[in-house]
Amino acid sequence: MRVAVLVSGRGSNLQSLLDAAAASRLGPARLVLVVSDRVGAPALARASAAGVATRVVPFVEFAAREDFDRALVAALAEAGAELVVLAGFLRRLGADFVAAFRGRAVNVHPSLLPAFPGLGAQAQALAAGVRVSGATVHFVDEGLDSGPIVGQRAVTVFDHDSPATLAARILIEEHWLLPRVVCALAEGRVRVEAGRVRVDGGLG
Amino acid sequence: MRVAVLVSGRGSNLQSLLDAAAASRLGPARLVLVVSDRVGAPALARASAAGVATRVVPFVEFAAREDFDRALVAALAEAGAELVVLAGFLRRLGADFVAAFRGRAVNVHPSLLPAFPGLGAQAQALAAGVRVSGATVHFVDEGLDSGPIVGQRAVTVFDHDSPATLAARILIEEHWLLPRVVCALAEGRVRVEAGRVRVDGGLG
Repeated sequence: MRVAVLVSGRGSNLQSLLDAAAASRLGPARLVLVVSDRVGAPALARASAAGVATRVVPFVEFAAREDFDRALVAALAEAGAELVVLAGFLRRLGADFVAAFRGRAVNVHPSLLPAFPGLGAQAQALAAGVRVSGATVHFVDEGLDSGPIVGQRAVTVFDHDSPATLAARILIEEHWLLPRVVCALAEGRVRVEAGRVRVDGGLG
Repeated sequence: MRVAVLVSGRGSNLQSLLDAAAASRLGPARLVLVVSDRVGAPALARASAAGVATRVVPFVEFAAREDFDRALVAALAEAGAELVVLAGFLRRLGADFVAAFRGRAVNVHPSLLPAFPGLGAQAQALAAGVRVSGATVHFVDEGLDSGPIVGQRAVTVFDHDSPATLAARILIEEHWLLPRVVCALAEGRVRVEAGRVRVDGGLG
């Protein structure tokens, strides 16, 4: 299964996929393309270092979001991507993308969705005073971080946490979760039934 | 510290408090009264068996919720209750109660609030397809399960879960959490700062 990864920044979740691929922990998944919406995203260097093709679809150069979406879908189609992973990708994708990759695109989010969707999820969690937060990988749909949930991992929130320290703890769980979800998807072990996701054999 | 417990049903959370008291795990907290809103709630028998006074304030016999609230507050005042624990108490309490016991009343809820407030929290969680849920103990305020969160514990949600099996798993965490919260409150280790709760020394 040909997998493309969308990135905007540092690319630590991308690195967890590159590491899993190098260790043969992604099953039949093959990372074929990394796309950034920004020129110079550090994630691109990680991809290149691992020998994965990269491409920039620069959001700021498009007049309308629809045009960006179309260019992104075209780049993914050209690479023959069968599964798309949003790994710290900060643009919200439109109807064209969702229609093209429904059930074949997943996003990583730093909260236990449906709690705290959107930007600044860790700060939202701290403001709400929760004692447990976590990471979610979910299918991408039309909503904001609202698609069917494939996997979640919980972390404890401490009194002394800042958004940064909480984010670091959640990131560990994101790195645990994401390669396992990609592997399960590539192995065909993931089904959606009435909005609920089943993973045959679990995530490990 | 004189503690009253409000119950509606089976009283398994009450039992966790009775057991903790018997094992001297409630610190300076003393269970002085158990109040049920229903005649014949099984929880009342548990209280009696442990030698704790019981009282019924029968919701159905009051013309208005405000009258029920007032009778409840009067019963609690009469017992000299300094802390009130809602342990499977299914009535929503009104402004009179909240005003009388602000910062001195806690509720147990079977989800990781702010996710899934209200009735049927376990079924709500399953319908949302989450892979992690849990238990919350929070201060009671005017909202529905919306007060500052004192403690939370996570549980894994399994593919084969029904609301009943998930509820049973969450209940184990409720029983872990509730006596520890009551002990921390009785020991004066709990502070609310800008809507966020701090527990000095943690919950254990």
